[in-house]
Amino acid sequence: MFKLVLIRHGQSTWNLENRFTGWVDVPLTPQGVNEAKSCGRVLREEGYDFDVCYTSVLKRATHTLWHCLDEMDRTWLPVLHTWRLNERHYGALQGLNKAETARQYGDEQVLIWRRSYDVPPPALDANDIRSERGDVRYAKLEPGQLPLTECLMDTVERVMPVWNESIAPAIKAGKRVLITAHGNSIRALVKYLDNISDSAIVGLNIPNGVPLVYELDEHLKPIRSYYLGLPQQ
Amino acid sequence: MFKLVLIRHGQSTWNLENRFTGWVDVPLTPQGVNEAKSCGRVLREEGYDFDVCYTSVLKRATHTLWHCLDEMDRTWLPVLHTWRLNERHYGALQGLNKAETARQYGDEQVLIWRRSYDVPPPALDANDIRSERGDVRYAKLEPGQLPLTECLMDTVERVMPVWNESIAPAIKAGKRVLITAHGNSIRALVKYLDNISDSAIVGLNIPNGVPLVYELDEHLKPIRSYYLGLPQQ
Repeated sequence: MFKLVLIRHGQSTWNLENRFTGWVDVPLTPQGVNEAKSCGRVLREEGYDFDVCYTSVLKRATHTLWHCLDEMDRTWLPVLHTWRLNERHYGALQGLNKAETARQYGDEQVLIWRRSYDVPPPALDANDIRSERGDVRYAKLEPGQLPLTECLMDTVERVMPVWNESIAPAIKAGKRVLITAHGNSIRALVKYLDNISDSAIVGLNIPNGVPLVYELDEHLKPIRSYYLGLPQQ
Repeated sequence: MFKLVLIRHGQSTWNLENRFTGWVDVPLTPQGVNEAKSCGRVLREEGYDFDVCYTSVLKRATHTLWHCLDEMDRTWLPVLHTWRLNERHYGALQGLNKAETARQYGDEQVLIWRRSYDVPPPALDANDIRSERGDVRYAKLEPGQLPLTECLMDTVERVMPVWNESIAPAIKAGKRVLITAHGNSIRALVKYLDNISDSAIVGLNIPNGVPLVYELDEHLKPIRSYYLGLPQQ
């Protein structure tokens, strides 16, 4: 039996400001740092250990991992950064306050963008200074790989190759894997692992800064999954 | 022409306490954190950028790198951790205060251990709780690779394989390399690059938390080298 641990980054400055973040590289808040450290402490206390870590190329996920590894005294573990674990790209909504966006576009439209599986928000213009064109961390992507907006389906499609080609083989080879990522890239993995329908996955909430453990059988099918150290509801 | 940047970690708690550190995994002091951040700022201001980073498996070097990458907005760069870049193993002296050690063994003997190329300090007993036996980060080393003490010559010998097999090929392939490591693992690289004699290398001081830049020709022979942002002497 294998174990896989997924962690959504701790609270970011734009979580706090209630803004659409997507690929914008905002840092953790002090609360987010504490959540990240708390993940590391609970993993250490529960006897978890890892051989390899995966994270996105966004600092809120990387910092969450670093604080977590610090608390586990595992700062030396190998870490693979991949844009495929980035948050869902939120297109032209990136940077906008969610309440303002609702006033501008209407609650119903915003709910469609947030809660439909296959309707992307308006795309960024490639020349928009908010686009990631020219950002060196994406320089090696092939033409067409750099999104200007994404629906959750798009996110799932670009997450899956790193699961199939790197993460799943690592787990099957016996490596204990820790992934720190984002609400929607973790949704993509959870959708695949638990075979959740397109309509159900959009309503599934992944809390910030709480380790989500999957126990997997030899075919990487979930036996059970649970959060570690989640405050009593 | 290639550029290579070497950084000795910022001040550690045991630098401050004047204790022999070696492979003991002590953290940075607040001053050490500032030195690390300052490295990142000067590298960014001087227009440096990197494709891959190397560091040891000790947190004072890893944290130095992380703070540096934070300041450069490069938290997503690939990082390779290797025990081969660890500090020189200081054997049974690890943890001892340098002044006390001098009183116990005599100034002359301590000077020999600190400043000779090929005389190691007394070895740790493999069963000493201070030995790294059982530390999971060294679990994959072959028998005999885990030192119980080292002279600088020993350190040079275990640093060189990672230079020859990984770092030098990366530089020749055009990758811009940043290394954060330790006084003696950096001495090993400097000895090799500048072809410094056994007797001269032991007297060469590498300051904490200052980027050391090597400009290298196509054969990786130094054209010149200099510190970035070193306070005026």
